[in-house]
Amino acid sequence: MRSSILFLPFKRKIAPDPSMSLLDLSQKLSLPLTSSCGGKKICGKCKVIIVETEGPLPEPSDRELEILGPLIEKGYRLACETLLTGDAVVRIPEESQIGRQVILTSATHHPYQARMRPSVNHYFVEVPPPTLDAPRADRERLLFALKEAYGIQDPSMDTFVLRELPHALRSDQNGLTAVIRNKSEIIAVYPGKEEGLFGMAFDIGTTTVVGFLLDLHTGAKLSVQSAMNPQIPFGDDVISRIASSQERPDRMDTLRQSMVDCLNALIADASAEARIDPSRIVDVTAAGNTAMHHFFVGLDARYLSMAPYLPVLQSAQDLKARDLGLEIGKSAYVHMLPLKDGFVGSDTMACILASRLHRVRIPTLLIDLGTNGEIVVGNREKLICCSTAAGPAFEGGHIRWGMRAAPGAIEQVKIDPKNLDVNVKTIEGKRPLGLCGSGIISAVAEMIRAGLVLAKGNFNDQIRTPRLRKGKEGLEFVLAWAEDSGTAENIVMTQKDISELQMAKSAVFAGARLLMDLFGNESIRRILLAGAGGNTVDPHDARTIGLFPASAETEIIGVGNAAGLGACLALLDKDKRKEAQSIAAKTRYYELSGSARFQELFVSSMFFTSAQDWKDQF
Amino acid sequence: MRSSILFLPFKRKIAPDPSMSLLDLSQKLSLPLTSSCGGKKICGKCKVIIVETEGPLPEPSDRELEILGPLIEKGYRLACETLLTGDAVVRIPEESQIGRQVILTSATHHPYQARMRPSVNHYFVEVPPPTLDAPRADRERLLFALKEAYGIQDPSMDTFVLRELPHALRSDQNGLTAVIRNKSEIIAVYPGKEEGLFGMAFDIGTTTVVGFLLDLHTGAKLSVQSAMNPQIPFGDDVISRIASSQERPDRMDTLRQSMVDCLNALIADASAEARIDPSRIVDVTAAGNTAMHHFFVGLDARYLSMAPYLPVLQSAQDLKARDLGLEIGKSAYVHMLPLKDGFVGSDTMACILASRLHRVRIPTLLIDLGTNGEIVVGNREKLICCSTAAGPAFEGGHIRWGMRAAPGAIEQVKIDPKNLDVNVKTIEGKRPLGLCGSGIISAVAEMIRAGLVLAKGNFNDQIRTPRLRKGKEGLEFVLAWAEDSGTAENIVMTQKDISELQMAKSAVFAGARLLMDLFGNESIRRILLAGAGGNTVDPHDARTIGLFPASAETEIIGVGNAAGLGACLALLDKDKRKEAQSIAAKTRYYELSGSARFQELFVSSMFFTSAQDWKDQF
Repeated sequence: MRSSILFLPFKRKIAPDPSMSLLDLSQKLSLPLTSSCGGKKICGKCKVIIVETEGPLPEPSDRELEILGPLIEKGYRLACETLLTGDAVVRIPEESQIGRQVILTSATHHPYQARMRPSVNHYFVEVPPPTLDAPRADRERLLFALKEAYGIQDPSMDTFVLRELPHALRSDQNGLTAVIRNKSEIIAVYPGKEEGLFGMAFDIGTTTVVGFLLDLHTGAKLSVQSAMNPQIPFGDDVISRIASSQERPDRMDTLRQSMVDCLNALIADASAEARIDPSRIVDVTAAGNTAMHHFFVGLDARYLSMAPYLPVLQSAQDLKARDLGLEIGKSAYVHMLPLKDGFVGSDTMACILASRLHRVRIPTLLIDLGTNGEIVVGNREKLICCSTAAGPAFEGGHIRWGMRAAPGAIEQVKIDPKNLDVNVKTIEGKRPLGLCGSGIISAVAEMIRAGLVLAKGNFNDQIRTPRLRKGKEGLEFVLAWAEDSGTAENIVMTQKDISELQMAKSAVFAGARLLMDLFGNESIRRILLAGAGGNTVDPHDARTIGLFPASAETEIIGVGNAAGLGACLALLDKDKRKEAQSIAAKTRYYELSGSARFQELFVSSMFFTSAQDWKDQF
Repeated sequence: MRSSILFLPFKRKIAPDPSMSLLDLSQKLSLPLTSSCGGKKICGKCKVIIVETEGPLPEPSDRELEILGPLIEKGYRLACETLLTGDAVVRIPEESQIGRQVILTSATHHPYQARMRPSVNHYFVEVPPPTLDAPRADRERLLFALKEAYGIQDPSMDTFVLRELPHALRSDQNGLTAVIRNKSEIIAVYPGKEEGLFGMAFDIGTTTVVGFLLDLHTGAKLSVQSAMNPQIPFGDDVISRIASSQERPDRMDTLRQSMVDCLNALIADASAEARIDPSRIVDVTAAGNTAMHHFFVGLDARYLSMAPYLPVLQSAQDLKARDLGLEIGKSAYVHMLPLKDGFVGSDTMACILASRLHRVRIPTLLIDLGTNGEIVVGNREKLICCSTAAGPAFEGGHIRWGMRAAPGAIEQVKIDPKNLDVNVKTIEGKRPLGLCGSGIISAVAEMIRAGLVLAKGNFNDQIRTPRLRKGKEGLEFVLAWAEDSGTAENIVMTQKDISELQMAKSAVFAGARLLMDLFGNESIRRILLAGAGGNTVDPHDARTIGLFPASAETEIIGVGNAAGLGACLALLDKDKRKEAQSIAAKTRYYELSGSARFQELFVSSMFFTSAQDWKDQF
């Protein structure tokens, strides 16, 4: 009998391999074990419990001793550090599991009353039988009928459409429905008169993938489905995921396939909800950051992380869905929206498209509050963008108790300025498990307002409260006591967490400031906050931590999942695809990595200028 | 233990199935067991020997008793009639095995000094690295370089080319080679300067498949490979094969896959001989009769055999090779030459193309001596074609000792007019196993000249020779005695065999006569004989049996495998593809099935007018 390692609660077994850690094995099984650093032995998030083991259990490493402390006696180990060789049972505890995220679906509303100009349309035609005088074959009769009825000239058909043709032509006496793309290619044929014509729009984020099933005839939204990005076990942020993609020869394909499986699952779920046959989905649009775009298409992403940080391609692409592995209409295409740069992807282009930045007169700042922290300043005259590499703090990464916006995540914090009592609001009202992006911003903003955090970001050690106390990593503030939390541990914000947020916010602030200067505007009157966090981040909190250069008059608007909305617009209206392409051509990319001015701004905006001791600093 | 049936000499095992005859099982194993009728229990060719059986052996059917006679005591049975349920050992004797055919490869010579205008060309370009001022992605830099160097505007690239691009661009400092089709699509990229560019031309016949590997740069022929059509076990002629394709839901796909496997084997063999990587094959042309075309592309062929006998498509098609399953360059295309009708396929169009019928002044008759018996009469003014459904007699089908042109097949017969001694010439000089097409024609021609066969096709029973004797089916003439043959049986030509040939030759004669009348020519000065049999059929023999309306002055030219040559021409010169399309448009198809005139001519040309008693007939 070969040995096996059983992973609970998933009941998945795998044979031990002397070259693979428990993290490697869990990735091989596609189990949802968190690992922010992608196995680089940095993040300490891949905690597992060794329930039993027959083979030798190696001594904990120094890093495990440091990170896990007393948990080691409860059987906790770090999956990335642990290598088992015999039979074993391993549990992935809930706090280490990647949860199903609460997704913003602002694009669930009928998107801006989009004009219905899909690239794919259906044409019903009667196709008369052949005569001895005109002995035309099936294909030739269909083309003749399409030309007579609609003036469509000689559209092409691929192998899979040709295979369907004889059946479609003879199954219904009345005629057949040809689904034609841009009047130039027949991508499906159905017997009789068939009105149902569907499309999917995808927003492929580093953390979350959202799919919208739309009716291409009416524009109706039939289903919205979302899932965690299945590549998270290979790294939380794009840089570690790109590094992971280069580690083994088959890893790039593993990443691609995991993404394809994820999109196919969304397609299946959406089709089931709308009670349609997935083969009737005949058009797809997809927006995502450049790395996600490359992983999905199967393009080598390694050069994204090497200077000059350029992608394999920039222009929008129309690729056959079957070549990408999507299980929809056999001959349908996927429209991949255009990329700008290695770190400004089609999601940003879709954000601009949906938020109409390129059409407004008033100069506007658009911030996509994600790991890449893309920023755009512009109006209908010009557009400048950059990527601030804010890091994952806005999505809960690199934060002691950070987590994604899943049930149990603290999304809002209130601190009573008098007694410093804390009140937390969690997603779905569950007992708190950690803090998601908006919760982190809210916590720091409240601590600043309560005088707990000072201008330099340090805790005010003059304040006496049992919540502010000395922890392993210096001072920490307790947001939820162990008895109230869902983890049976105190949920705290550490000095290091505040530093992480400071760095993230100053990156965004500095990027915004720089772009505004380049644009030639001292101040900005309107700021749009997009992204998974954008909808719930309180504008007041964002001001307090100094996320962006704003005056009291600046209007701050949450625009939600603007990238998804942009993908939907491009699905329903093919002219929006051209518009996205022209946005990409028009937008100027500013590379921050070599900019001394950015470094200067980054350092100088590290302070919390709203803190009570700010005026004492100078 | 499950029971199993072992097939010798192939040592292949399969579990018995109460719904499957031995023929069905051998087809499932893709064993080369002959069955002209495709399992319709007509031909009696699927003889097997039951070596041992543990389960019950059913009583022989009346048909088996009649066809096999004393062979039954030696264990012979018909595979289509026999159903075994227990362990068994079954031998497929050599005479029932489909052999490897000797193939005509007239297209092995440099084809008519074809002009080299392939649809695919290679372009070497230097692609400068990106600059900060022009931060262009890989694809955009390549397109810019191609435009600068060659004026090629924005060619497309499919998913698989995009995936190769980053590697190809960085593996050689000097630049890369882009393989571009019709200046509009990049179908491959290679690092550095790469001169090797290859293509395959296929002639897909009902009986034989031939593949030519050509160098698309020099035009050199690098390899010619051939194989038996793997669909033969599903029926010898297209009609029985189409019927077989409809018998089970998965049969059409089985037929398609067997053809794809066969073409891939030819590709692999040709590539190995030429020492090239099959992925460097970047263009393919294919000609075949309409049924073979449909089976290969995966199109439902059933309507070919129903009035009005029209194909799914007529126009030439460019289909992605990977969609058809060919293992060559991932993004290469297959050019399927145009079809005319259900029974006049792209092989006939390729024959016309290669034989230049459409360009000559002198009206010429082209006969493709195969199962379909396609006939064309024409010149540069006009072309008329028909399919005579001659049946498989010209390829050895429906003839008692008929076989394909494999080693041991009698291809020429000489009968001494004085003592009626017989001298046979076999392929590769082996002991005779049967007669191939040219041997059958030669035997009958010699028997006519020796006075053994009279005008009506009957044997002259006044002649006394031990070779002319009474057999099971009436009179028969012994061509090879059992002691000289390779089968240990007398090889004979029966009265019924002569009738089969009479029907085949009168079909061709009547078709030719009819087309000549339609064309408006009493006589024809030049006749081209094409097809697998065309090269070796002796013009004198063809005249003697009255295969075509010819005067003493008529020039008769064997043009060999003209369809294969046509496919090669279309591979090397894209203008030939247009020419083939215009031939198809120009050619008029004449349907014989409803023609009273054809019936009349068919009946009246049944006689052998060169027979010694012809003048006594009227």
